[in-house]
Parts: sequence; structure tokens; C-alpha cells
Amino acid sequence: MGRGAETKERILDQAVRLASRDGLDGLSIGGLATELGLSKSGLFAHFGSKEELQLQVLQAAVERFRNVVVRPGLAAPRGEPRIRAFFERWLEWDAGGMPGGCVLIAAEVEYDDRPGPQREFLVGAKRDWFDTLAKAARLAVEEGHFRPDLDPRQFAFELYAIILGYHHAKRLLQDPQAPRRARAAYDRLVASVRP
Amino acid sequence: MGRGAETKERILDQAVRLASRDGLDGLSIGGLATELGLSKSGLFAHFGSKEELQLQVLQAAVERFRNVVVRPGLAAPRGEPRIRAFFERWLEWDAGGMPGGCVLIAAEVEYDDRPGPQREFLVGAKRDWFDTLAKAARLAVEEGHFRPDLDPRQFAFELYAIILGYHHAKRLLQDPQAPRRARAAYDRLVASVRP
Repeated sequence: MGRGAETKERILDQAVRLASRDGLDGLSIGGLATELGLSKSGLFAHFGSKEELQLQVLQAAVERFRNVVVRPGLAAPRGEPRIRAFFERWLEWDAGGMPGGCVLIAAEVEYDDRPGPQREFLVGAKRDWFDTLAKAARLAVEEGHFRPDLDPRQFAFELYAIILGYHHAKRLLQDPQAPRRARAAYDRLVASVRP
Repeated sequence: MGRGAETKERILDQAVRLASRDGLDGLSIGGLATELGLSKSGLFAHFGSKEELQLQVLQAAVERFRNVVVRPGLAAPRGEPRIRAFFERWLEWDAGGMPGGCVLIAAEVEYDDRPGPQREFLVGAKRDWFDTLAKAARLAVEEGHFRPDLDPRQFAFELYAIILGYHHAKRLLQDPQAPRRARAAYDRLVASVRP
């Protein structure tokens, strides 16, 4: 990685953190420059516009999500172990590192009513992830871990619902029981789809 | 209701709609005045500050939620019928009327990281509603509709998770299957807690 690419990586790291706390719309090239002790014109050279900065932040967040959740999950044995790996890493991702929790959940609520490239990117990324989850559920059926009549998209919907419940309980209510509740919901979900 | 109170009611109606689309922070006394064809100074006379406007919008939204979801639910027979009435009306509330769906879900994500009276109000309202749901689940145990070892707070957590999954599927993904998926998740949840 060249020096320019490293600088950009560092800028995007900080921008993802800020967006998780202040929302994607709370990001500004000026504010980010101040946080990083860089010049506003230097940041403009990297991003050109606020919209471009927002899109690159979303891309960086999705790339991180792939590294932290998707790839390690795909490395787990197919069937129920892979589903559990996805779930556990997803919980960790939402709890970990970022000051405002999952930047993607925050951006989804922020942009669900606002047509444009940010929304399109979020919808595409969410569809990809749901496809991956549904495929993992289908493999769990093939492995005989889940019931043959399972609807894989329904399973993905319910898994995501648990993550959303966790995110809200943890962030808004600061409920220390949130991880326990999310795991209990997961166990109940999986128990109900076993053959 | 006097003329002043009626005007205020009309202003708050419009403000709740705007906040559901643009977020609580997207509300401004100036923007609201333009939408309503009223003077900015007239609106200041009603609210005094943006924070006061935001708090009154949240109060108005919670009052509406009580009228649309909580009170009619409490009028249903105790036990499983009351739980289902809460759930069905909650879905309707999120789907209905407002351009951005449930203004409270949007505000919760917006304010989960921002200490202050808006966040405190949201936390208090959410705790009250969870108490109501947990109590309804306890009554369902007493009626013999739900298992005696049910954890009522876990049940409330899972019910809310389904609503959040519905909100996201409907608003971000514009999934026409969202109501069907939410009802299937509800049926599975309730089936798993029957004696």
C-alpha cells in the first residue's frame, strides 16, 4: 500500500467512526479535517464532495463487515455452525470498535426515505448479505441441520430482526442483558427450525 | 379545545410527519413555518426553541402511539388476544399514515448516542412500553396461554425485534413480503411459548 493509499485508509477509518456516532449526514469534510489535523483542501483532493465521502465511508464499512463477519463465517463448516458463526460475529461487530455501533444500521434508518446513491448502495449491500444468509440457511437444510420445509428468506429476516433488537436494546436502553437476550432469541429461532 | 390548542395540534401533526421523514434533527422552526404557511415568529411563540419543538413532537408521537396501539390493545381480552392486538396495531402504526414510518424508531437511532432530554424521553417511553408488553405476557401466562416458565422481558425483546425487522424490510428494502414475514415470525414466536 502506497503512502497515499495509507493516508486514505486512515481517513476512512476515522470517517466510519464519526459516521457511526453522528450519522452519515453529520459527516463533513471540514469536521473530518479538524478531527484528523489535516487541511480541508487535502481532504477535498481525496474525496471531491460530501456525497463521494459518504459513499466511500459506506463502501469502507461494508468491506470491514465482510472481513469481520462474512469471510470468517464462510470459513466455518456449512450448516448450523456457519449460521452461528455469522450470528456471533455479527453481534461482535455491532458491539465492537465503533462509538455508535453498526454504522450501516444507523445509515439505513437515516437514508431509508432518501432516494440517491447512498440509499442504492445500502440496499444493494443489504440484499447481498440477505442472499448470503439465505444461502447458508439452504445449506443447513441440505446438511440435515434445519427442516426441509424451511423458508431461507424468512430465516434471514428473523435473524436480522434479532440483531436489530440487540442493537436497540444495547444502544438506546443500554441494557446489560442485551447479549443474553439476543442469544436466547437466536437459540429459540434455531430450535424451532431443527428437523 | 380552544383555537390556540387546535392550531398547536395542527402544527404538531405536521411536525410529526416531517420528523418521520427527515429525522428529529431535520426539523426546524423555519422549515415547519414554510410547510404550514405560518410565520416563524408565530411558531416561536408556541415552542420557543428547536429542542422544545423536538420534545413536543416526541410527546405528540407517543400520545398517538398510545391511542393507536396501547389503548385499543388493552381493550382486547387479556392473554394471547391482547398480545396479538398489540402486535397487529403496532404493524399498522409503522405502516400507516406517516411518510417515514414510525417516527419513534427513527428518533431512537438518531439519538441513541446523544445524551440530553430527547434521549431521556425516548428511553422512558420505550421502558414504559416494554413494561406494558411484559405485563401482557405475564397475564398470558396466568391465563394459561403461554408457558409458565416464560421470561416476559425476553418475550417483549423478541416482539420488538420482529417490529424492527419489519420496519427495515419495508422501508429500506421496500419488500412487499414484509407484513407476511413479520406475521410468520410472530406466529413462530407465539407457537414456541405456548404450554
